[in-house]
Amino acid sequence: MARHRGGGDLVRLLMTLLLAATPLLAPVAAELEEAEVVPTAPPQVASSSLARGADEGLDDVPADVRCASWRLAAEANNLAPWKAVPAECAAHVRAYLTGAAYRSDLELVARESAAYARAAPLGGDGRDAWIFDIDETLLSNLPYYADHGYGLELFDHLEFDKWVERGEAPAIPSSLKLYMEVLELGFKAILLTGRSEGHRGVTVDNLNKHGFHDWDKLILRTAADRKKTATIYKSEKRKEIEAEGYRILGNSGDQWSDLLGSSMSARSFKLPNPMYYIP
Amino acid sequence: MARHRGGGDLVRLLMTLLLAATPLLAPVAAELEEAEVVPTAPPQVASSSLARGADEGLDDVPADVRCASWRLAAEANNLAPWKAVPAECAAHVRAYLTGAAYRSDLELVARESAAYARAAPLGGDGRDAWIFDIDETLLSNLPYYADHGYGLELFDHLEFDKWVERGEAPAIPSSLKLYMEVLELGFKAILLTGRSEGHRGVTVDNLNKHGFHDWDKLILRTAADRKKTATIYKSEKRKEIEAEGYRILGNSGDQWSDLLGSSMSARSFKLPNPMYYIP
Repeated sequence: MARHRGGGDLVRLLMTLLLAATPLLAPVAAELEEAEVVPTAPPQVASSSLARGADEGLDDVPADVRCASWRLAAEANNLAPWKAVPAECAAHVRAYLTGAAYRSDLELVARESAAYARAAPLGGDGRDAWIFDIDETLLSNLPYYADHGYGLELFDHLEFDKWVERGEAPAIPSSLKLYMEVLELGFKAILLTGRSEGHRGVTVDNLNKHGFHDWDKLILRTAADRKKTATIYKSEKRKEIEAEGYRILGNSGDQWSDLLGSSMSARSFKLPNPMYYIP
Repeated sequence: MARHRGGGDLVRLLMTLLLAATPLLAPVAAELEEAEVVPTAPPQVASSSLARGADEGLDDVPADVRCASWRLAAEANNLAPWKAVPAECAAHVRAYLTGAAYRSDLELVARESAAYARAAPLGGDGRDAWIFDIDETLLSNLPYYADHGYGLELFDHLEFDKWVERGEAPAIPSSLKLYMEVLELGFKAILLTGRSEGHRGVTVDNLNKHGFHDWDKLILRTAADRKKTATIYKSEKRKEIEAEGYRILGNSGDQWSDLLGSSMSARSFKLPNPMYYIP
């Protein structure tokens, strides 16, 4: 990389980066009218099933191992967009979520996040921000998903809204601990959720009831945001947060769409979630 | 996100993205002298051990589950830079690599990659490129690592060079299949490796012997690249590739430093590798 380059060259370089970060960015790219011709990310076709012919090489692999591969691929952002847990992996995902592994994965991500937070050079001017997603990041909807196949059923907005309105989602303990430590260190907590503005009251109550207090902002989706992908919506909100003078040093989310896009955090942490995928 | 914005604003937005993509980008950022004040990614302190006090919440979790969490965190880019597999996870990593799970993970990533490749809208002008890393992506060094604790031992350049010079690294079968399919679809294969230019001959022989042929370019590290991180070196080479008119539509690598940085591919695929970490 040349040490000196012109501004136009730089814009082109960064534009390419922006377009290239992920297929999720294609809609962002569409908004960048200054863009030159750069590679666009075509939609990746989902592979239909994990169990296929012998030529695929996985037919002799036990289902549990194949499903662990599916889960790993989801966490490493290797999968095409998916709408439900593969049927053959329903038992695997249920066992993962209800056993020690999910909790262990959550704890380790929280620990790495805290180690990063402690080493981060804070400005100390009240503008150091940590963004948290809410669902499956601060609060757990496992009680809901336990009644809906742990991701095996297609997402049902109406049913899920009823659950949200009960305001009974428990805290994820490792996330609560991280949240408190991050505040203690002097970060401002900004909660950025795909929940709708109409659920503000119940969300505040739910958070408070389970130990989350003292955030700087709670940003929910307005009517104008409803048709946007989470990647776009959250990128826009992060841009607004930056425009207000915050430095986004950390970001915790269970979806890649919480973390990728533009105005990204200095460091992002991906919490596990094999139950659903939000583009 | 505003639909119209000034170029300066755009540069700032993209700059932030560039800086924010990952801590690995900090060195890239240092080269961007046009940069305004944006969040920099401080080094994340590695957590010393997986087994810690009761307050960490993992003491009651079986070692194998903790080690699976460590491996998952590595694959999701949640870990601070690490120099060796945690001692308590040596057996876990060995079992993973020598059992069905590693092969299954590799197969699934290759399958998702192929599904994406088949759906990609090729320009058909001979400029559609797919970048492949070599070690642990096309070729496997498992025979070497089997003799060196599967990542438990600190990396030994001299010993590893001796292994490379034997030219006996086997192909990763799922990667060979993907490689051939990608060529068949009309992509140009570009091999971009951290191996040094001095190993060109033995690398070509090793690749050919195990079925890899007909790449467009094989890019190795020159003396001038020696002190660069892989992220910087590979970002620079991708920029050169783009400058030659290629559209980088796919990128396969076992390290995040193969995939992140600037001039990123339209879509990147992270192959599993719990043995070593390259910044």
